Amino acid sequence: MRVRALWWDDGRLALLDQRLLPAREVVLRLRSVGEVARAIRTMQVRGAPAIGVAAAYGMALAAARGRWTPSRAAALLRATRPTANDLFVGIETVRAAWSSGGDPLAAADEYARRIIEECRRIGEAGGDLFVERPNVLTHCNAGALATVEWGTALAPLRVARDRGAKLFVYVDETRPLLQGSRLTAWELARERIPYAVIADNAAGHYLKSGAIDAVIVGADRIARNGDFANKIGTYEKAVVARENGVPFYVAAPWSTFDDAAADGTSIPVEERDPSEVLAIGRERLAPAGSQARNPAFDVTPSRYVTAFVTPDGVVRPTELRRRRPVTRSR
Amino acid sequence: MRVRALWWDDGRLALLDQRLLPAREVVLRLRSVGEVARAIRTMQVRGAPAIGVAAAYGMALAAARGRWTPSRAAALLRATRPTANDLFVGIETVRAAWSSGGDPLAAADEYARRIIEECRRIGEAGGDLFVERPNVLTHCNAGALATVEWGTALAPLRVARDRGAKLFVYVDETRPLLQGSRLTAWELARERIPYAVIADNAAGHYLKSGAIDAVIVGADRIARNGDFANKIGTYEKAVVARENGVPFYVAAPWSTFDDAAADGTSIPVEERDPSEVLAIGRERLAPAGSQARNPAFDVTPSRYVTAFVTPDGVVRPTELRRRRPVTRSR
Repeated sequence: MRVRALWWDDGRLALLDQRLLPAREVVLRLRSVGEVARAIRTMQVRGAPAIGVAAAYGMALAAARGRWTPSRAAALLRATRPTANDLFVGIETVRAAWSSGGDPLAAADEYARRIIEECRRIGEAGGDLFVERPNVLTHCNAGALATVEWGTALAPLRVARDRGAKLFVYVDETRPLLQGSRLTAWELARERIPYAVIADNAAGHYLKSGAIDAVIVGADRIARNGDFANKIGTYEKAVVARENGVPFYVAAPWSTFDDAAADGTSIPVEERDPSEVLAIGRERLAPAGSQARNPAFDVTPSRYVTAFVTPDGVVRPTELRRRRPVTRSR
Repeated sequence: MRVRALWWDDGRLALLDQRLLPAREVVLRLRSVGEVARAIRTMQVRGAPAIGVAAAYGMALAAARGRWTPSRAAALLRATRPTANDLFVGIETVRAAWSSGGDPLAAADEYARRIIEECRRIGEAGGDLFVERPNVLTHCNAGALATVEWGTALAPLRVARDRGAKLFVYVDETRPLLQGSRLTAWELARERIPYAVIADNAAGHYLKSGAIDAVIVGADRIARNGDFANKIGTYEKAVVARENGVPFYVAAPWSTFDDAAADGTSIPVEERDPSEVLAIGRERLAPAGSQARNPAFDVTPSRYVTAFVTPDGVVRPTELRRRRPVTRSR
């Protein structure tokens, strides 16, 4: 039942097409950096750690062809999406190997193993948080699909379940692209962790009623002061959690931490096409001619974060500077 | 371009089928109290003031047939939906006339006129609030469709526009049933008031960024202390508005105020079918077998309300007891 979002397969990058889940499980096999860039841009692969690993393999695919330079391949991949820090870490990790005459594919493999291992350690570090707080809200998908394996937000839940927690997960559907109802629900169902999908609007109701003991989400970029970007709607959940005294956790590998960002004002927020808001599949949701706005992320100030669940332990925002590895590739 | 949600038409209650808007404008003509009860239950007519008026006409339809007693007709209509106070006021207003030998249809007509007139006065009372604060967030639909004519939350916006405000309305799509993107957008488009539909998740982002100057919503039931029930998600918007110093207004006719409810704990919250969360039209949104929870309303404590916009003026929660008419039919 273990989920894996992507893997290297005989010279190609194989990945589950996340636009089609859960209706169809289709594996794409990408042969070029251009195909990888398109898969990231169209969100066939999504989730900050996962797109970092996909981009790392995209660099390796470019290196295997004569006509790419490290800079041109990196520029193509960097232009796909602006918010997730991991994307840039994955690209630059392989570029460094490639530019210095190393083996780009070995560097990508090593980067993938590092992310998987960090997610496993996030699970170990955070698992006990949910043994006493088994009724959990999560937003978007920060599971194996978002991170290759284990997940960030979902890794501690997997571990908590193995440690005997009687979990019940409230899954925000996460409009507009429904990564909660489509992807998180699919992962939890495979793991047989009980859950209920709720409209994003219902999270506040359950936070206020006492039904939810804790919130855990992933992140796309975390600034030095602990402000962080994550899927649009995360900020509302964080504010309402604090208003009701419910702990709010953010789980991420070190590749999500951006040393170049002093605070949240330095984090670029992607605005996506309005059509994602105005229709779902064949169903139009608003009158013809309607305008929509579609920010893909929001930035939550660190004061709403109870703690970060990192590969090296559970860290309060005020402790962040001290606990983080000092140098990160970027 | 004026919108009217329902009207009496030659012995039948005519109403726009709000399940089909905006794709199709279909007028239903209901001949019996049973048909009216079904239209309320299935949300072909929705919005607290509008279902109160529909129920008033439902009583009149029952009275026109020999086989109904006032009590049996009232019981049928009262069982349709539990949260909106207006439903019970509409029913009891006509029952009082019917039981005392009055003309039920005249009582229903009079009730409808009263609601329309109160909504018009809500617009007059609240219009100036938005002349200086023209960038407005609203949640769900509290327009003419929800109230027969004018609207509650939308009435002051119509008046503000006529008074020269350069409005821009952020329309929460309002999952699960999308009354914002389907109905509020449709009304604003007809009135040529500029708007953008946003995912419910994006409201917090725009409240924090300063893009939104004020929030206005309707209500389904308002307790004596100012706690109020409204469409699921309203509570989150109210908390995040206060966190960002953005005024939060609640517009309602007197039929929404429930003298029997001391505070929000007395307000019953309807739980609707999970299928509303798990699919939209032909599109399934979650894996087969998924559970969902679907509370239709939440209750917002009065401390998050800047003021109520009533037919008799803009009233702060602490002034509510003093400013309200002393006796209400119930």
